[in-house]
Amino acid sequence: MPNPDVIACLDANRDKHLQQLCQLLRFASIANNDDDQCSRCAEWLVDHLTALGLPARIMATGGKDAVFAESDPDPAKPTLLIYGHYDVQPADPLDQWDTDPFEPTVRDGQLFARGASDDKGQLFLHLMALEAHLACGVLPVNVKILLEGEEEIGSPSLESFVSQNKALLAADAALISDSAFFAQGIPSILTGLRGLAYVELTVRGPGADVHSGLYGGVLRNPINALARILANMHDDAGGVTIPDFYHDVLPAGDPERAAWASLPFDAAGMAASVGVEELTGGEQGLSPLERCWARPTLDVNGIVGGYTQPGAKTIIPSEATAKISMRLVADQDPERIVDGVRRFVAEHTPPGVDAEVSLHSTGRPVRLDTDSPAIQAARDAMTEAFGRETIFIGCGASVPVTELFQRLLGMDAAMMGFGLPDDNLHSPNEKFSLDQFYKGSAASAAFLELLPKRLQ
Amino acid sequence: MPNPDVIACLDANRDKHLQQLCQLLRFASIANNDDDQCSRCAEWLVDHLTALGLPARIMATGGKDAVFAESDPDPAKPTLLIYGHYDVQPADPLDQWDTDPFEPTVRDGQLFARGASDDKGQLFLHLMALEAHLACGVLPVNVKILLEGEEEIGSPSLESFVSQNKALLAADAALISDSAFFAQGIPSILTGLRGLAYVELTVRGPGADVHSGLYGGVLRNPINALARILANMHDDAGGVTIPDFYHDVLPAGDPERAAWASLPFDAAGMAASVGVEELTGGEQGLSPLERCWARPTLDVNGIVGGYTQPGAKTIIPSEATAKISMRLVADQDPERIVDGVRRFVAEHTPPGVDAEVSLHSTGRPVRLDTDSPAIQAARDAMTEAFGRETIFIGCGASVPVTELFQRLLGMDAAMMGFGLPDDNLHSPNEKFSLDQFYKGSAASAAFLELLPKRLQ
Repeated sequence: MPNPDVIACLDANRDKHLQQLCQLLRFASIANNDDDQCSRCAEWLVDHLTALGLPARIMATGGKDAVFAESDPDPAKPTLLIYGHYDVQPADPLDQWDTDPFEPTVRDGQLFARGASDDKGQLFLHLMALEAHLACGVLPVNVKILLEGEEEIGSPSLESFVSQNKALLAADAALISDSAFFAQGIPSILTGLRGLAYVELTVRGPGADVHSGLYGGVLRNPINALARILANMHDDAGGVTIPDFYHDVLPAGDPERAAWASLPFDAAGMAASVGVEELTGGEQGLSPLERCWARPTLDVNGIVGGYTQPGAKTIIPSEATAKISMRLVADQDPERIVDGVRRFVAEHTPPGVDAEVSLHSTGRPVRLDTDSPAIQAARDAMTEAFGRETIFIGCGASVPVTELFQRLLGMDAAMMGFGLPDDNLHSPNEKFSLDQFYKGSAASAAFLELLPKRLQ
Repeated sequence: MPNPDVIACLDANRDKHLQQLCQLLRFASIANNDDDQCSRCAEWLVDHLTALGLPARIMATGGKDAVFAESDPDPAKPTLLIYGHYDVQPADPLDQWDTDPFEPTVRDGQLFARGASDDKGQLFLHLMALEAHLACGVLPVNVKILLEGEEEIGSPSLESFVSQNKALLAADAALISDSAFFAQGIPSILTGLRGLAYVELTVRGPGADVHSGLYGGVLRNPINALARILANMHDDAGGVTIPDFYHDVLPAGDPERAAWASLPFDAAGMAASVGVEELTGGEQGLSPLERCWARPTLDVNGIVGGYTQPGAKTIIPSEATAKISMRLVADQDPERIVDGVRRFVAEHTPPGVDAEVSLHSTGRPVRLDTDSPAIQAARDAMTEAFGRETIFIGCGASVPVTELFQRLLGMDAAMMGFGLPDDNLHSPNEKFSLDQFYKGSAASAAFLELLPKRLQ
């Protein structure tokens, strides 16, 4: 068990910590936006960290600023790098939120706000644990803290930032909390994440919207053409038809499949939680967990073209656009995938329209070594704090930094996730369980004590 | 030639008439909208007609109001029913207009405004001709005037309105100006119009937008599903695959094809005028004019779903919607076509999502008898006013009233069109040639004199 004084200190400060997290959540720090919410949020974090005794500073990345802090180093101790991201997903559709996404509200032990779980609540609980250790004496490890402002747009500036700051970020272990329990009551650590390739496809026809009666039957319609290109990206069995899409996919092995089959996975419950009858997406013939954790996917995240207001307008539109993201698994290479998309679109664009593929971001998939000291320490800390055996699970999401830490800094980070599957990530009414929040800070405090022993 | 005093009166009032038309064009009378622009526009027309000596009134239709006026009837004269519509297409995308769509602007002899050609400019030139005849003595015919406020949304209230007002609307001939010349300098009368079936298709999946990493591969994506349904609505040869879609189509005959082949149709010019290289839409193997005038089509007019703001958002969206219009030809029945769409969507909706088809409007296709007195008088009047032989042409657009007048009132209306093919109907920078506007009013004045002779 961690130092009881540390736990007592965490318990004594629950209200203060909740109020501080609410301050952090009031910033609408959306990386897509040009306003000053990200920079104001970053400055708040710099002030907060510095006040804790962890001198912090803003660091330029080429995109939204990062925040970096480090404790006064003790050469006798190992160093831990903690990552979090202070940017959040856009909040729309706003009309589906029960309360203002940027005015945090507690209901039934849940804190509702955009970013509550992803990732402000999760990054903040580590700061609470550090504060408690500092209040009780000294930190068991040296810490470096990196808080990113572009995770939700695919961390486009992070690879060059990490490459250029290898010495600054050098550490013996890394800790990332941007994930969730497999289910309520089952502490979980991720062993892998999918990568991402996010592109935008625009199909252009006439120079302006034109009359669909006068031109219907002679002009190629950009929306119809776009729909056909998108439809052709999947075969009838749910597979993706982009050239070479599956070429580098490492199939799941029998041990992995057996491990997943042993998990208490509730397909009907998952379907019901998002309001559908069945989990019918993805490739036919594979289990839901395999489809989500070990198979790549292609989803249209947004589409728009022509007249979208209420009522009717009879036009052939000038253009139509789709945002397309592909989740990738080891060992797919995002660059190769994007190249395949470009070839596919070129081959499937009919005469009479032009198509353009532009790249938003890419991130590589990652598999983590569960024998790493950080992951072993994280497992013990979570088991201790939550009183139940911690399991290793896969994840369909992407956290680009994980692969960058592995490839550029040589560390397999511990992905301690404190969210719950019903946290409504990227959705209206995102929330974070206060019980997870407080127990998570205890787990973080325990991890800080356990890590040096594992690193010996 | 018409009464020279009438022509002189038209010439003397050109500036006044242009100013009055500009007043009419300043109303943003878009039938989709809930504001008071349509009712204010209708009231302006009532005042204007009444001031001309044609007592007018607002008539409720169940939707947007209609305006009705009639001259003091002389039992010795035949009666002409003139139709126009005062509603206009929505003006968006607003950023593509060179000047405010509702602040009429003259440049190079063209009047730019939403509704300039479709249909405020064209309806107004008949009021000018009536004013000139009244100023010179009496009208050659009794006139009734019906100005509709819902044409651009498919005239959803018009069929019941005409059915319930057959006596009020009873006439010996009908005149409609809501079309265009085949080409600059070639006066043209329409011999047919396509019908319309306009539906909205919504595909719904999860109850809210959800994380595309956590759910990608297990949830059916509503945008992908919608794209696939839409793509399947056409075959590889450009044909429409809705069940029974072509069942009632009357194929063009050799005489029609020969007549169309003799027209000075400039396919490359038409393509260039809208900024495309080739006319590649519609069914392969048929001429552009046949595809546009004699074949049905299916176009997506608008589509929206998921995240459509700048940048990236990684979601599987809750729903996606497409607006779909089908242009129909004789003897297709819109009800049967919509029924086919519903069956098609039901058959093509994959498990995991729901699809809903809602109906916006329908209008039947129409073919007109070119031997009707009104059409013969119109041909002579246009030839006289424009100094060049008037031709009969088809049209791919829809003007629902034409079929209603034929079916419910027993009249094949004269479709005298004064627009030009480059008027940007339904597009940004809609315009009307002032030369067409003034010569059109002279043609209307001539028509009023020629019609009684044809009806004798």
